Amino acid sequence: MSPDAISSRGDRVLRWADALAQHSDHPEHLTCAYMTPAHRAVAAMLETWMREAGFDDVRHDAVGNVIGRYRAAPGNDAARLVATGSHYDTVRNGGRYDGRLGILLPIAIVADLHAQGRRLPFDFEVVGFAEEEGLRFGGSFLGSSAYVGRFDPDALDRTDADGITMRDALREAGFDPARAGADTDADVASRLAHYFEIHIEQGPVLLDRGLAVGVVSAIAGSVRRLLTLQGQAGHAGTTPMGLRHDAACAAAEIILAVERRCGQTEGLVGTVGRLEVPDGSINVIPGCCRLSLDVRAPEDTVRDAALADIDAEITAICQRRGVQRKVEEIMRVPATPCAPAQRALWSAAIAAHGVPVHELPSGAGHDAMMMANVAPVSMLFVRCGNGGVSHNPLEIVTGDDVRLAGRVAEAFLLDLSRVLD
Amino acid sequence: MSPDAISSRGDRVLRWADALAQHSDHPEHLTCAYMTPAHRAVAAMLETWMREAGFDDVRHDAVGNVIGRYRAAPGNDAARLVATGSHYDTVRNGGRYDGRLGILLPIAIVADLHAQGRRLPFDFEVVGFAEEEGLRFGGSFLGSSAYVGRFDPDALDRTDADGITMRDALREAGFDPARAGADTDADVASRLAHYFEIHIEQGPVLLDRGLAVGVVSAIAGSVRRLLTLQGQAGHAGTTPMGLRHDAACAAAEIILAVERRCGQTEGLVGTVGRLEVPDGSINVIPGCCRLSLDVRAPEDTVRDAALADIDAEITAICQRRGVQRKVEEIMRVPATPCAPAQRALWSAAIAAHGVPVHELPSGAGHDAMMMANVAPVSMLFVRCGNGGVSHNPLEIVTGDDVRLAGRVAEAFLLDLSRVLD
Repeated sequence: MSPDAISSRGDRVLRWADALAQHSDHPEHLTCAYMTPAHRAVAAMLETWMREAGFDDVRHDAVGNVIGRYRAAPGNDAARLVATGSHYDTVRNGGRYDGRLGILLPIAIVADLHAQGRRLPFDFEVVGFAEEEGLRFGGSFLGSSAYVGRFDPDALDRTDADGITMRDALREAGFDPARAGADTDADVASRLAHYFEIHIEQGPVLLDRGLAVGVVSAIAGSVRRLLTLQGQAGHAGTTPMGLRHDAACAAAEIILAVERRCGQTEGLVGTVGRLEVPDGSINVIPGCCRLSLDVRAPEDTVRDAALADIDAEITAICQRRGVQRKVEEIMRVPATPCAPAQRALWSAAIAAHGVPVHELPSGAGHDAMMMANVAPVSMLFVRCGNGGVSHNPLEIVTGDDVRLAGRVAEAFLLDLSRVLD
Repeated sequence: MSPDAISSRGDRVLRWADALAQHSDHPEHLTCAYMTPAHRAVAAMLETWMREAGFDDVRHDAVGNVIGRYRAAPGNDAARLVATGSHYDTVRNGGRYDGRLGILLPIAIVADLHAQGRRLPFDFEVVGFAEEEGLRFGGSFLGSSAYVGRFDPDALDRTDADGITMRDALREAGFDPARAGADTDADVASRLAHYFEIHIEQGPVLLDRGLAVGVVSAIAGSVRRLLTLQGQAGHAGTTPMGLRHDAACAAAEIILAVERRCGQTEGLVGTVGRLEVPDGSINVIPGCCRLSLDVRAPEDTVRDAALADIDAEITAICQRRGVQRKVEEIMRVPATPCAPAQRALWSAAIAAHGVPVHELPSGAGHDAMMMANVAPVSMLFVRCGNGGVSHNPLEIVTGDDVRLAGRVAEAFLLDLSRVLD
């Protein structure tokens, strides 16, 4: 393929992302929630582009995943299946590359392979997962769970903010809810040899290091907790500092303890994202303070050691201040390591393009976590601009970075059969 | 007067407070906002009890202050006027002694003096101020401002949560808003030699020291500010700790800096009562955090020195963290010192009853601050139970403490003319 054609691939992908972003649930910003008209329009465009790219089979399943299969070269009938993809739904007021880049760039690669009459030594599927963000019905990984035969039918009873069940939303969009999760291609679980996902980093690490792409070492496991601190409300003017049981002061110490502890270990992150003195008054000592805690690390042992230290600090802070605490754990997800053989292959492909190799954990969750239930997974991160912002209209990538990511991914694909078990 | 009669005075005052608390804007808790039916019922009871106590003139003015005058002993026609009182409105879900104790106990003292046929060497007024808390129309000191001829007619245009103006609320309650603040007794500003106020401490200091009463040294001046911190929102999983500009972490440092600085000086207090990450999400680094700051001290120089140090800390914290700050000062009230001669008289009266003398600043604002515009003021604090809680249904005082406060106040009154200028 000519360098000109390859250099245009980055721009083509950006134009596709722009075109998808025209379809939104909201007139002023990009929101694409599960099974809305905008969501259906995006799915239809993905199907069209897959057909135009030369995929042999293009289908959608009963939850709205859009799946294009590019068949293996002749003589590979019993070949393993390799899949890639990401999600095409968005968060509210989101960006146009989150998820979608990981669908569009592989479509463009297949289009180029097809134009050159080239095939891979395995069946290759590109999947646009219908839902990963959980914006409309909560939960997450709906699309990839159906793709690997792990769809939870109870999800059909979930309701959106208007009280509409997922079942009715599917019906309204022309799907048969009875088939949701029931039409999984059994090939996937039995034949899938590898799943990889190309995704924007959604963080500032690559930008900070001046690198267009990076290899994901692991997808961090996370623990989420809600803390309620109960001190003693009092008059802000009449209670001497030494006689206070100020719930917000206890929260302040906890916030800084989380920051300090998580700053000690590379890859470990801890965040207090929600923070509130309920019904706080300027002249009342906070009797109550609520805060959230989100701790993630690429290794569960690292995360749990940090949590144990934070727990001990919280206990000491509350005891010293005469403040009661209630801690509720609302989520615990193990880390997903990326497959060493494919990590090495990504690194080789990057190095072959003259780019320094950098491995980094993914602090965000991705469909690859669900896919890891049935096959080894790997991920390639692409640099975000604007400080690394994502889930935000300011989310950007450059055509040059996408072009490089495409070259690296194509090299990875062409070499992949070498490391498949 | 017999010891039995005096010992019953504490219980009588508590029974009166219980009776007033039967009148509330809310069926389940005590709320008595300006010019509501409950507020008018309380005023009517105060007028009745003043008449029964033997006050010579009982009147109300055009803003609803209830004023009873107990005339000086014959031969004192040119005598100075001495006033005492407090407010009879409450905060939302408030306590039954805040404000009201300072009206009821003086009524009971006059009742006893009258029963004994005793008069004071000055005209003595007990005032139930109609409004101090600002619950319904904002602002504060409405009652005492009208009493001393400083009523601001613009207040009539203020609206409550239902959009009703103060003007209409007065009319609805049977008052002529055109006369609000216009019927002030000119005697007050010209003849007032002293104003004192008996009030619950609304704090834990006397309780903590095992003292029934204490002498107020000064009413603290206060400064209130609203801070908005603007950092950078980001994904809680993908932004390494070292690349964050977390507005909540900056707030946490500020909260602890306020606590540390204000803990260094007796009488100085600093509180962050409002604290919020607006629209915070468990998985998003706080880009914004809002907090309030309330700093008070019995001397303005002490308060302002603390504020300067806190300002410097806020500047350093925000610079170090790459966080922008907006600071808005919404209130600045100077401290009101209590008159030394009367402070000494209170101390002598307390010591004469065998109680250790303790002086303490008032961190809360009181009508005495407004009264200080026209005369020297002093205050007696009465111990609160339940940890010193106030503005709360748990607010309590004991009959014994009220009885002692009554004896001390009677002794103060009988000796007061000795120290009047």
